Amino acid sequence: MATINENYLKLQGSYLFQTVARKVHEFESNNQGARLIKLGIGDVTQPIAPAITAALHRAVDEMGAAETFHGYAPDLGYEFLRNAIVENEYRKRGIDIEPDEIFISDGAKSDCSNIQEIFDHNSLVAVCDPVYPVYVDSNVMAGRAGNFSEETKHYSRLIYLPCTEDNGFIPDFPKIKPDLIYLCFPNNPTGVAITKDRLQEWVDYALKNDAVILYDAAYEAYINDDQLPHSIYECSGAEYCAIEFRSFSKNAGFTGLRLGYTVISKKLKLHGESVHSMWARRHGTKYNGAPYIVQRAGEAVYTPEGSRQIKEQIATYMKNAQYLKSALAGAGYTVYGGENAPYIWLKTPRGLSSWEFFDLLLNNAGVVGTPGSGFGSHGEGFFRLTAFGTYENSREAIARIKCL
Amino acid sequence: MATINENYLKLQGSYLFQTVARKVHEFESNNQGARLIKLGIGDVTQPIAPAITAALHRAVDEMGAAETFHGYAPDLGYEFLRNAIVENEYRKRGIDIEPDEIFISDGAKSDCSNIQEIFDHNSLVAVCDPVYPVYVDSNVMAGRAGNFSEETKHYSRLIYLPCTEDNGFIPDFPKIKPDLIYLCFPNNPTGVAITKDRLQEWVDYALKNDAVILYDAAYEAYINDDQLPHSIYECSGAEYCAIEFRSFSKNAGFTGLRLGYTVISKKLKLHGESVHSMWARRHGTKYNGAPYIVQRAGEAVYTPEGSRQIKEQIATYMKNAQYLKSALAGAGYTVYGGENAPYIWLKTPRGLSSWEFFDLLLNNAGVVGTPGSGFGSHGEGFFRLTAFGTYENSREAIARIKCL
Repeated sequence: MATINENYLKLQGSYLFQTVARKVHEFESNNQGARLIKLGIGDVTQPIAPAITAALHRAVDEMGAAETFHGYAPDLGYEFLRNAIVENEYRKRGIDIEPDEIFISDGAKSDCSNIQEIFDHNSLVAVCDPVYPVYVDSNVMAGRAGNFSEETKHYSRLIYLPCTEDNGFIPDFPKIKPDLIYLCFPNNPTGVAITKDRLQEWVDYALKNDAVILYDAAYEAYINDDQLPHSIYECSGAEYCAIEFRSFSKNAGFTGLRLGYTVISKKLKLHGESVHSMWARRHGTKYNGAPYIVQRAGEAVYTPEGSRQIKEQIATYMKNAQYLKSALAGAGYTVYGGENAPYIWLKTPRGLSSWEFFDLLLNNAGVVGTPGSGFGSHGEGFFRLTAFGTYENSREAIARIKCL
Repeated sequence: MATINENYLKLQGSYLFQTVARKVHEFESNNQGARLIKLGIGDVTQPIAPAITAALHRAVDEMGAAETFHGYAPDLGYEFLRNAIVENEYRKRGIDIEPDEIFISDGAKSDCSNIQEIFDHNSLVAVCDPVYPVYVDSNVMAGRAGNFSEETKHYSRLIYLPCTEDNGFIPDFPKIKPDLIYLCFPNNPTGVAITKDRLQEWVDYALKNDAVILYDAAYEAYINDDQLPHSIYECSGAEYCAIEFRSFSKNAGFTGLRLGYTVISKKLKLHGESVHSMWARRHGTKYNGAPYIVQRAGEAVYTPEGSRQIKEQIATYMKNAQYLKSALAGAGYTVYGGENAPYIWLKTPRGLSSWEFFDLLLNNAGVVGTPGSGFGSHGEGFFRLTAFGTYENSREAIARIKCL
């Protein structure tokens, strides 16, 4: 008799962004003609840069001719893209990563959620709180998280690393030693970046405790401060204990094109077993590669024109971030993030809960953000705004918020 | 202390097609200039049809303009594509499937390997033998398959359904009742199709035993015989017990574009739990959708021009299949499949093992096929050739094989 994976029943409510979407849909149904400003989900708004669409057009033409048609992609992804990534993202920063340590995929969300499969079913998992929900939910589905407590809003078998105003939203080491540690910097949702020294401490901690760090660097392109690390592999010894996830979604606007990659050094071994080989096996067995045309688009990100064009896009978003941050601070809000990340993490006013502030903003200002409590119990009383809107919308949002 | 998922250590050798690729690579390194004819991996060779590349170009232009840019796709996939699929693949055949029962994905391989996640960890899984390796390997990785026996070449907890000359490569019901049953028709690797009556018997069996059929219909476009079912939902009651996987890879040459879909009726429930909701949750949490431009390409498959163009492509491949089958039969080989599927399943001559015949064909004829034993113990003594080459190459392959 077929039965379901009962771990799914332990998932809390629906996925955060689905709930936000439902509330927005209800508001729009009941308020025909109202112009909402959406600074909620972290989706980009600027179009794909010209150098990249040109590469896409060329690749489409290749696919339309027998001599240049491309079928199944190589398991790790095309070498032209892996070489470009290694050269531009790693070697230029003095990091020794080989092209065959790069696994091209359809995005960091897939990789972040699938990576847990290659580790032991009983692994103890540490996550930041607040946290990008995918790290938690993928481990709940796999049965690693235990049961959810309505009281603590925590799963019994997860180790939570509080990220609070007190610790500057950079987690301290936990009392219980984890096997797997999810870290994301610059952080989603807090928008806070980590210093190289602090990240090195986490790498040292992982090495000392035989833990693996699952490092989500999807927002590294938003780092303004030259001293901050773009990759965990800037830290000494990270190749022995860390897996890194990267995305083209936020640096080049690929949320609708789908491209990302995972980096696993061949030096990362657990009891002599190569983690690289395990992921290679998973990748080859359960996945068939990102589209050729999208991999060519990724390559174009690293051309001189592509690189210049996406830098301009990022600068546009960061102008929004700076504006949102200073304007909200000027209006009396306590605001974090937004300097090396496209996210603003603000404290809700007057002790409102995150969802109360969400409803207030939606219903009275027509502005959509994301409730901090949706990212974890330590996100309660906070609220995330993204800098991915247009500058005009960012200004309009502030004008409306000031009237609240 | 982090440890690996030890189930991965139970996987046998490397993924079949990786082994084939390695042997081919070695041959090519040692035989510079030799012209290999590759009828091994099931990759297509004809370029993307003009109506589809035109749609891709239009979609790329949309992505390059702010007003028409598309970011994250809707969870289930774009409605324009789901509507086109429902209309053309189901309603035209009198099947009642709703657009919100379609889940767009990056291909059937991902879906076939991920689907097991939503079922109980202890589910008893039945697979055909020979079988597309992904069904087995994904369950080995999940710890459902038990241990592999070198003697029987079987995993201890899988239920094998022998597909042999005796049963015409259509499996009989097993002695032990399975919870999940993977079926694939027209079949990969045998190239044999199932009749509607026989498929109805499997649906009735599943309904009677509370089992779920995971039906891979990736090759349905190759069916020539009007009486054969394209979808399991042509069978009465299948909406209560079956999940169907479809692909654009083989009907429209999307192996390098990546697009497929899974169909789950909202009527499919296990102990009152909606399997549709479970997969929706998995899809929304661990996946971010197929690229907008590729979904537009999928839509173009259903336009009058697109439809006509891909029918011509399929006819070209089926001309190869018919030629390969009759020429091999004429040369004294025993041959199956190839009439409603792009695969030829031939018996190796002179009692050679599948891998011996692979080596013979590679080294003495410069032709690459796939050893039947790579698909399971009942594939031993068989060999798969695909019809996805060009007609010229198919003729040349036969000329070379005749000289063996």
